[in-house]
Amino acid sequence: MKSHTEYMTFETAERREFVRITDDVQAAVDAAGIDEGMALVSAMHITAAVWINDDEPGIQADALEWLDKVAPPSWKPPSNDVAGELLPEGGDYRHHRGGEDNGDAHLKNLLMHHQVIVPITAGRLDLGPWQAIFYCEFDGGRDKRLIIKVLGD
Amino acid sequence: MKSHTEYMTFETAERREFVRITDDVQAAVDAAGIDEGMALVSAMHITAAVWINDDEPGIQADALEWLDKVAPPSWKPPSNDVAGELLPEGGDYRHHRGGEDNGDAHLKNLLMHHQVIVPITAGRLDLGPWQAIFYCEFDGGRDKRLIIKVLGD
Amino acid sequence: MKSHTEYMTFETAERREFVRITDDVQAAVDAAGIDEGMALVSAMHITAAVWINDDEPGIQADALEWLDKVAPPSWKPPSNDVAGELLPEGGDYRHHRGGEDNGDAHLKNLLMHHQVIVPITAGRLDLGPWQAIFYCEFDGGRDKRLIIKVLGD
Repeated sequence: MKSHTEYMTFETAERREFVRITDDVQAAVDAAGIDEGMALVSAMHITAAVWINDDEPGIQADALEWLDKVAPPSWKPPSNDVAGELLPEGGDYRHHRGGEDNGDAHLKNLLMHHQVIVPITAGRLDLGPWQAIFYCEFDGGRDKRLIIKVLGD
Repeated sequence: MKSHTEYMTFETAERREFVRITDDVQAAVDAAGIDEGMALVSAMHITAAVWINDDEPGIQADALEWLDKVAPPSWKPPSNDVAGELLPEGGDYRHHRGGEDNGDAHLKNLLMHHQVIVPITAGRLDLGPWQAIFYCEFDGGRDKRLIIKVLGD
Repeated sequence: MKSHTEYMTFETAERREFVRITDDVQAAVDAAGIDEGMALVSAMHITAAVWINDDEPGIQADALEWLDKVAPPSWKPPSNDVAGELLPEGGDYRHHRGGEDNGDAHLKNLLMHHQVIVPITAGRLDLGPWQAIFYCEFDGGRDKRLIIKVLGD
């Protein structure tokens, strides 16, 4: 069994941002020299996620808006009454008592999951026609790491 | 290390439907001739999911109704005021501007995740007593694919 | 390729509880004698989850409260009007018709996902600085199992 590991570092300009990394993951598979196996793509931070979906800007804007409704931030006013009601009692997250302001980003990590496993067949990521891999940042503006671990033969 | 790959194609009659595939995944493990390893079960489309849960019809009906509340469709009227409030401004998803009508299905994919990894021990899927594997369709009526990739020894 | 399997059993005092298991997973990697590979950590029950996040009590309390808002229980009164509206029609889950009272726990399993895969590099779990692994119980008070399957070389 062969294995190969790469780390990527992101420092997004926006607090929340999707970064397409499909080609980076394929490059790690190429570097591994593996024909059959799996590539684990996993955020190393607790306020980020990895998602496989369509590279269509409308979907990404919809998803970011929807994540804000389901897991509303408290570092800006809630966008509507429903979002307001969903905030924990006291109007702010317990996590913020220590000075943090990213309580919602932990819940977005929960919603979106921090990792995917991509199958490798004949040396290529075995993805469907519209599947692209995205690093999803929910608390950007500083260095965040991601690991790509490729295993196979 | 041995590997084995199978593809399944689904064309569900319903737009949203759960299809039990536990036996298909076990058959792939049998074909692989693997005693110890993992089976990756991954939807190759961005409006579907894979879920491991109980094969109890009430749970599935509850889950479909709940998914519609949390990630409401816009191709039918919202089922209540809360669902209506959760819709993006303008009453419809940005993704629909290009003629699509499955914006909610992308969010359901996000909520439910598109893949699971099943451990294999002594040649069998090492699942708990009530764990069954389901392909979860959120935009059916046309061919959709899923990959089963088995790795091990 | 080497493999190693361990099972853990939990019987939490609380119905909902997070149990940190990072050291248990590392111990399984040590027992496996693997330098490069992956550790699958997967709940064997359908009303539990595995989450990687910060070991900060505020985050865990926030997450439990938020899970109750998004996937409200029906075995106690809803905590507010929004939670009440989100309940299935009839005020209770279909799953409860057979005498069960854990319908919400199945949805929390869906939200949080029942498994993670942890990369192993140089014999250590290759986690970020704040990443800890938690078993997440949503229907405790009785024996529940989890599998750790380590694969690699």
